Order: sequence, then structure tokens, then C-alpha cells
Amino acid sequence: MTIAAIAKEIGLSVATVSKVLNGRPDVAAETRSRVQELIVRHGYRRRSSPSSETSTPVIDVVFETFDSPWAVEIVRGAVAAAQGEGLTVALTSLEEGDERRIWFDHITSRGTRGVILLLSQLTETQRSELHSRRLPFVVIDPRGEPGPHVSYVGATNWAGGLAATRHLVDLGHKKIAVIGGPADLLCSRARIDGYRAALETAGIFLADSLVVRGDFTVVGGYEGARALIARPDRPTAIFAGSDLQALGVFKAAHEAGLKVPEDLSVVGFDDLPIARWSSPALTTVRQPLAEMAAVAVRILLEVGEGGDPTDRRVELATDLVVRESTAAPRCRPSPGRSATEVVSPTRIAEPASG
Amino acid sequence: MTIAAIAKEIGLSVATVSKVLNGRPDVAAETRSRVQELIVRHGYRRRSSPSSETSTPVIDVVFETFDSPWAVEIVRGAVAAAQGEGLTVALTSLEEGDERRIWFDHITSRGTRGVILLLSQLTETQRSELHSRRLPFVVIDPRGEPGPHVSYVGATNWAGGLAATRHLVDLGHKKIAVIGGPADLLCSRARIDGYRAALETAGIFLADSLVVRGDFTVVGGYEGARALIARPDRPTAIFAGSDLQALGVFKAAHEAGLKVPEDLSVVGFDDLPIARWSSPALTTVRQPLAEMAAVAVRILLEVGEGGDPTDRRVELATDLVVRESTAAPRCRPSPGRSATEVVSPTRIAEPASG
Repeated sequence: MTIAAIAKEIGLSVATVSKVLNGRPDVAAETRSRVQELIVRHGYRRRSSPSSETSTPVIDVVFETFDSPWAVEIVRGAVAAAQGEGLTVALTSLEEGDERRIWFDHITSRGTRGVILLLSQLTETQRSELHSRRLPFVVIDPRGEPGPHVSYVGATNWAGGLAATRHLVDLGHKKIAVIGGPADLLCSRARIDGYRAALETAGIFLADSLVVRGDFTVVGGYEGARALIARPDRPTAIFAGSDLQALGVFKAAHEAGLKVPEDLSVVGFDDLPIARWSSPALTTVRQPLAEMAAVAVRILLEVGEGGDPTDRRVELATDLVVRESTAAPRCRPSPGRSATEVVSPTRIAEPASG
Repeated sequence: MTIAAIAKEIGLSVATVSKVLNGRPDVAAETRSRVQELIVRHGYRRRSSPSSETSTPVIDVVFETFDSPWAVEIVRGAVAAAQGEGLTVALTSLEEGDERRIWFDHITSRGTRGVILLLSQLTETQRSELHSRRLPFVVIDPRGEPGPHVSYVGATNWAGGLAATRHLVDLGHKKIAVIGGPADLLCSRARIDGYRAALETAGIFLADSLVVRGDFTVVGGYEGARALIARPDRPTAIFAGSDLQALGVFKAAHEAGLKVPEDLSVVGFDDLPIARWSSPALTTVRQPLAEMAAVAVRILLEVGEGGDPTDRRVELATDLVVRESTAAPRCRPSPGRSATEVVSPTRIAEPASG
């Protein structure tokens, strides 16, 4: 499929089609989408990269929002790995709607060695655009199915969810809740499935009401934990799904007068720097975020040097890190609270005599 | 001062001097430093920027270490402001020694609209190099005196230290400690001086032993607080100097069995996202970090368009944000501890009868 053939089929000049392929802004939106639709249909790929793209010593990291320490750890790892190759990391935030389009034109004119996308959902058109411009790209923790020709890097989320929950089961917990992340995020689904697997293999009944939805923010963890703590049969342990959500669980426990881990065990996921310094220090599942970023950089460079861009899919191992936020569940009122909470024999006898 | 004159004085070819000025790597280190020394002495400045530098739609943000949420907030602000101008932010970490040199050559060949340096100490040579290449640059929170021709952006650290300490004085505290940051960091010195001013104007005796040194990390705050808590006349309040140090103070208090704010009031500085979500939520001094970054970006662009690069010095206002980590000091043993700590009249009488 040549540019001339595309131009002929769509009834446009070769120059206009070429402009679209080069990401030039001076093309009407409707024309652009007609050309891109055709490209997607026919699978056009530019034969060689323009020299600006291969020579610019820049790798792009693109994220939806940069407000999470998770993204920061990825960026740190990418900067370290890129500098080792003499490259700079350029950051783009796609928080606002039309920035996606502008950014795309921008990197095409500036040039890049490749693109690392964080937590992103690629549309069919975007994927095709990246392919057709021969821009190497890799997704870290893709939303949804990454599609057939997309490289991605993740962690063993399922195994991490399993390990977190097994740890709580081994401590003697039976009422274990989980707070998930966004429903469309594969890594969140995998963690919850690991949780389910741990309960099932331990023969513990899985109550659907103990699975609540969060959004991987502190607020999400806080709200999820408030709902769980308010239940008459409140859980004795919560697998918080992420470290930020675990901090939200701490907050909700603090407000409810529950002590961690005495009244409530909490496990996070990520092992961000804050996990070591929260009070109590957080038991969590370590994701090798810096290594994930380094692997992503390596994939970009290999693809840029002619490696096959498709089907590079890597999951790096996770590890349980046990700190202070988990303990065996209490079987009776704690010594510290017994003075005010002790129940007199008379009152215990009441229902029987009433 | 022309390139030819420099070449003549130093006994090198014009081509070699030109290579040094353009940051090319194929020059012996000794030659490079001889040329740079001369440039510093004579104040050479390239007459116009090479086109690659003005046309590359990139702003560089350079930091020593990217492990602090403080740096993250600055970067977020810079990305947002740069994108508003159609520019990308490129990140560089100078954690390793010789990366400073490599990075310098790198941005000179790649081109940049300007450089934002975080918490950096510029040597005379580096400053001169930046000037001689006509690269606009601005320092955020400089270490030490930034020098006569350096633009910088900071916050009103002195006023913030004053407000934090006044808040504690107003609550009734007399024994107020402070944990500072690195001694060579101007912003840290200013905060401590604000603390001193608040105590002096309130007529409170300032004990030098209540001023301890940290490094603006969680560990620094933890160690400083451990030392303060171990004192026989332990303080009832700590101005922690930064939010990360405040988290370290929380940790030390937690380990010592002290409750915040009942037994110990804590004030941070920065208002990082974590401040709202710690348990208890942290009373702190808000620095407008994103706005500081936006101002830095604006200065770079103005200088790039011909504005005077010298003497642009801005301090943005700070605000006290009162949350849950500060309260009036306790005057007597708390109800919660009285059961174990009550002193019998007999024992009080002992010394008198002994």
C-alpha cells in the first residue's frame, strides 16, 4: 500500500495524505480521520523512519495523570535507564481531552526514539497511527486488552494478589476484604482474581460483599474502607489493592478508632517509598516499578534497531514485603480496651432469660 | 571577545574552541577546561543561539535526585505550564557525578528552550557555560547564594516558618523544637530564622538544643525527632521543616507511644498531597510548588524572547493550612494514661521525709 494508492482511493492529493502521515497540523480534522481510517483498514506502514525521529535522543513517557507516586517511580526508572543510553525522557500529561492530538503532532515533528504509555487505553486508530509512523511504543499496565500487536510490561499482579491474601489467611484471618482499582484496568482485575484464588484454595467462603471497588487513590481506599468498617460483620483484614488505597484504609480505621494491625490488618500493593514510612509501616506487595520502566526502555530501543515490534509482553515478579500493618486477628476484647468493654455475666444471661 | 580572540590567547585552533562552545564531546577534558576557564574570565557570550536550540520545543528540568514528592510537584507544574506553550518537559537526574558533564553536552547538541534547575548549586564555571551558550536558566530553591546573574524562584520560606511557629505559640506551646534541612539550603535557613523570629517576638526563650538538623527526608525527621523525644525536657511541639520530615516525626512519636497531637503537635512545610492523607492529617505550610514551576517556565520563555536574563527573582507566598496534627499542649497526665501514671501521695511525700 503506497501513499499514491491511498490518495487515489480516497480522492485526495498525495501531498495531503503525506501531511496526515507526517502528523502535520494543517489538515482538516475530517480529512485526517478519513485518511487514518483507510490506513487502519489497509495496514499501511511507512517504509523508513524520517531521520528526525531516529536521531532525536529522546524517549517519550506519556501518562494520563502524574499525581500518583506510582507514575513517579516509573518515570524515575525510565530516566535512569534512558540516561544510561544517552537519551532524555520527555514527559507528557494527557489530562485534558484534546492534548492527545496535539501531543501526537508534536512528537512527530520533534522526533522521538519511542513512546512509553502508562495505564493507557489505546484506540484502534491511535495504535495504527503509531504503527504507521513506525514509532516504537510500549504500554505499562495497559487498560483493557492491549490488542494483538502491542508490546507491554506489567508485574505478576495475580500472583501478588494471591501472596497478599495467603499472608492474611496464614495469620488466621477469615473475614478478608479487598478493595480493587478501576474495573477496566487489567492489573486490578488480576489482583482481585489472585485474592479469590487464595480464599478458594484455603476453603474460605468468598462473600461478594467483601469485594469493593476503588480507583487506586487514597480517597478510593478511604471510602471503600469506611463502607467495609461500617458493616455489622466487619472484616478483620483488608487487602487494599494499592499502597495509596492502604493509606486511605489507615485513615478510615483511625477515624473509626480501630488500631492497625490489632483491630484491622492491612496489605497494600506497589511498595512505594511511603509504604516504609507510614505509621505503622505497611505490609505490601512489591512491584519492581523501576525495572519495569527499564524493560520498557529496552524494548523501545530493540524495536528501533529493527526488532520485531509485536508480541513483546513481559511480566516481572512481585514480592510480599511484611512490615507492621498485619497481625493475627484478635479473638477476644483486647487488654487495652477490656476496662471499658467488659460485658457483665448478668447482661450475657439476659437474652436467655428474656 | 570573539572565538578567534579566545583561540589566539589560548593557542588553539578556532575549530577546537568552537567545539567546546558547542559542547561537542570530541575534545580532551583538559582542553575543554582551559577554554572554559578563559570564557569565565572574559565573560564570552555567543552572539545568537544556534537554530537547534531555539527551535527545539523542549524545556529541561534538572534535579539531583527525583525521589522526593517535592520534585514531583515541581515537575507536574512544569509539564502543565510547558504544554500550555506547546513544549515538552525533558527530565534529567544528576545523581551520578559525571552525568553533569554528559548532560550538558547532550542538551547542547539536542537543543532546549531553557533549563530549570532544582535545589542546585551552580559552580561559577557552570553558570558561565550556561550564559555563554545563551541558554536561559532559572533555579528553583537554590542551594547557597545563587550569584549575581542568576534568576530564581522560591517561596516565602521565612514567613512560612514564622506562621508555623506562631500557630504553635498561639496554641499555648512553650517548648517548640524545629528540625531544619541541609545547612547549605537557603530555603531551610529561612524557615529556621522564621521560627526564631516567632519565638523571640512571643518572648519565649530560644534553647539552641531545640534546633536540630535534618536533610528534608523522612529519615532525617525520624532521627531528629527521636533525639528530641529522648530529652528529659522533651518538646510539646515540633516544627518539622518539611512534610517528609513531619512523617518521620509521626513515626518516631508512634514508636515512643506518643499520640499526635495530644502528646506532641507537629507542623510540616510544603503541603504535599500526602499531608492531607496522613493519620492524623498534617498541619503544614503550603508552598505553591506548581505555580513556582509555572513562573520558572515563564521566565525561561521571556528570556528566550530577549528579556533580561538577570535579576529575575521571585518568591511566591506561603499559607498555613491547619489540619489535625496540632493542638494545645496537655497540662497534666491525660485521662487515658492516668491509670498507670498516677503518683501516690505517699511517694510524693518520700523525698521530703527521706
